[in-house]
Amino acid sequence: MSHTTHPQGTISPEQAAVEQELVDTVVASFEKAGDPRLKQIMQSLTRHLHNFVREVRLTEDEWNTGIEFLTAAGHITDDKRQEFILLSDVLGLSMQTIAINNQAYTGTAPATEATVFGPFFVDDAPEIPIGGDIAGGAAGQPCWVEGTITDTSGNPVPGARIEVWEADEDGFYDVQYTDARVAGRAHLFADDNGNYAFWGLTPTPYPIPHDGPVGKMLEATRRSPVRASHLHFMVTAPGLRTLVTHIFVAGDPQIETGDSVFGVKNSLIKKFEPQPANAPTPDGRDLGDQTWARTRFDVVLAPANA
Amino acid sequence: MSHTTHPQGTISPEQAAVEQELVDTVVASFEKAGDPRLKQIMQSLTRHLHNFVREVRLTEDEWNTGIEFLTAAGHITDDKRQEFILLSDVLGLSMQTIAINNQAYTGTAPATEATVFGPFFVDDAPEIPIGGDIAGGAAGQPCWVEGTITDTSGNPVPGARIEVWEADEDGFYDVQYTDARVAGRAHLFADDNGNYAFWGLTPTPYPIPHDGPVGKMLEATRRSPVRASHLHFMVTAPGLRTLVTHIFVAGDPQIETGDSVFGVKNSLIKKFEPQPANAPTPDGRDLGDQTWARTRFDVVLAPANA
Repeated sequence: MSHTTHPQGTISPEQAAVEQELVDTVVASFEKAGDPRLKQIMQSLTRHLHNFVREVRLTEDEWNTGIEFLTAAGHITDDKRQEFILLSDVLGLSMQTIAINNQAYTGTAPATEATVFGPFFVDDAPEIPIGGDIAGGAAGQPCWVEGTITDTSGNPVPGARIEVWEADEDGFYDVQYTDARVAGRAHLFADDNGNYAFWGLTPTPYPIPHDGPVGKMLEATRRSPVRASHLHFMVTAPGLRTLVTHIFVAGDPQIETGDSVFGVKNSLIKKFEPQPANAPTPDGRDLGDQTWARTRFDVVLAPANA
Repeated sequence: MSHTTHPQGTISPEQAAVEQELVDTVVASFEKAGDPRLKQIMQSLTRHLHNFVREVRLTEDEWNTGIEFLTAAGHITDDKRQEFILLSDVLGLSMQTIAINNQAYTGTAPATEATVFGPFFVDDAPEIPIGGDIAGGAAGQPCWVEGTITDTSGNPVPGARIEVWEADEDGFYDVQYTDARVAGRAHLFADDNGNYAFWGLTPTPYPIPHDGPVGKMLEATRRSPVRASHLHFMVTAPGLRTLVTHIFVAGDPQIETGDSVFGVKNSLIKKFEPQPANAPTPDGRDLGDQTWARTRFDVVLAPANA
């Protein structure tokens, strides 16, 4: 009688048949679902979760640990903290969903790649003029960011809306403070030639919240909770695909160590050129004896239905 | 250029490579986990969850729905309610874990099959003598339950500990009431010949708690939340594998409709023989003008390390 080899030992054909019959029964239980898409999702989820449980030969204690993990994740989650999104992020599932829904598109030029949205976007960030400052008092090294918004045929996109947001040099977004400050975020619009520019902060690395069950899992598996330094962008314009992305800082050692949510793409790593104190600024702004940096990010938007 | 066909359309080889590279990166991130079993589990979970997301081409809205589902499940879960266990149950994952950890074992006789534990066991249920009544005031038709505990060589197991618990005729376990009653549960010990007997209640069908996100999912997929009628057993004895199981009622229409947690096994379906009012009882108990039922459940325990 032949046996299937599994990591945890061998399984008789009879045992394999019992396990497969259960999978088939559960899959069949979703046959009557009214919505065919819901049926497809539940049947696929069932198959893949059973494959996982069968492949690792999950013990009853391990099953319990899984239930306790999900329970703890549920209990730490509130209006300000979303442990299930963190879990999706650190398993790369958020990034995979982004990859699936923002496929590469190349016209004359390739569309800029997307990356994870993250939990720190706010809908009503203040508007600044081109060349304005998003810092709003957030601590960090000033950084001049400029670029052009075009479509994949190379045409500029005048009036494109550009949302930008980032953490301060202590690694916190404004919404993580309790004083209702608005800092390190703004929106602006591209000019008639599709150009934009603003003062932000040179991005610095920070950990995702890691005092909960996801943090414990990262620690147990010796993974770093730290995100590679980045500056968030969301660019929208009529008829074009909304782009949610970041730019990363070339040379940031965390890019090699591994971004904790797998958001880095090579095309999104940009040189941030350090400037000495008293170097003349692009817009004549007087930064006193502060050092600063500058970078360029040219954005190419795919067609809306690409 | 060849394209892979997916339910949601076609995927270019470049896109498939981007998606697979992400999976490989996440799997590699767990390489440094200290505990090899933890590494195995996290890598397998990662692969299977990504396979699911890629297979169905999960949209960003659907991902959001998933996050919201888990959040709602976390928020309804407390000391009395465990929505993640319900979720595992209705996806058949609890039963699959049972199947994996309680494989079929046959000596002279086959060991009794296991099924799901459920959330309603209580550690300190009262002891009753053989022939005692577990009802403790719970409403329902009296039912005489008797049998023998043996090992797979056919030897009786004197002193085996037998825990039994069940819902009342309204479909509720004692712990679901707010008045701290203890009813419909007890433990007893097999006699010197491995025999046992007790008065319980004829089991009746009841729904799992379905006023939460799991209930909504069942409703959306047109699945019944109802469990086939059953009586819980847990049998323990030194040197033998602990058996957690139920017996089901032959003829219960819910067995055909489908037990909501996939707990039914043919070997666990037992005849519950209806007895007219005033039929003499096995132990001479006077039930007045009540009808009653009787059933037999012979238990065979596998060796501890089978």
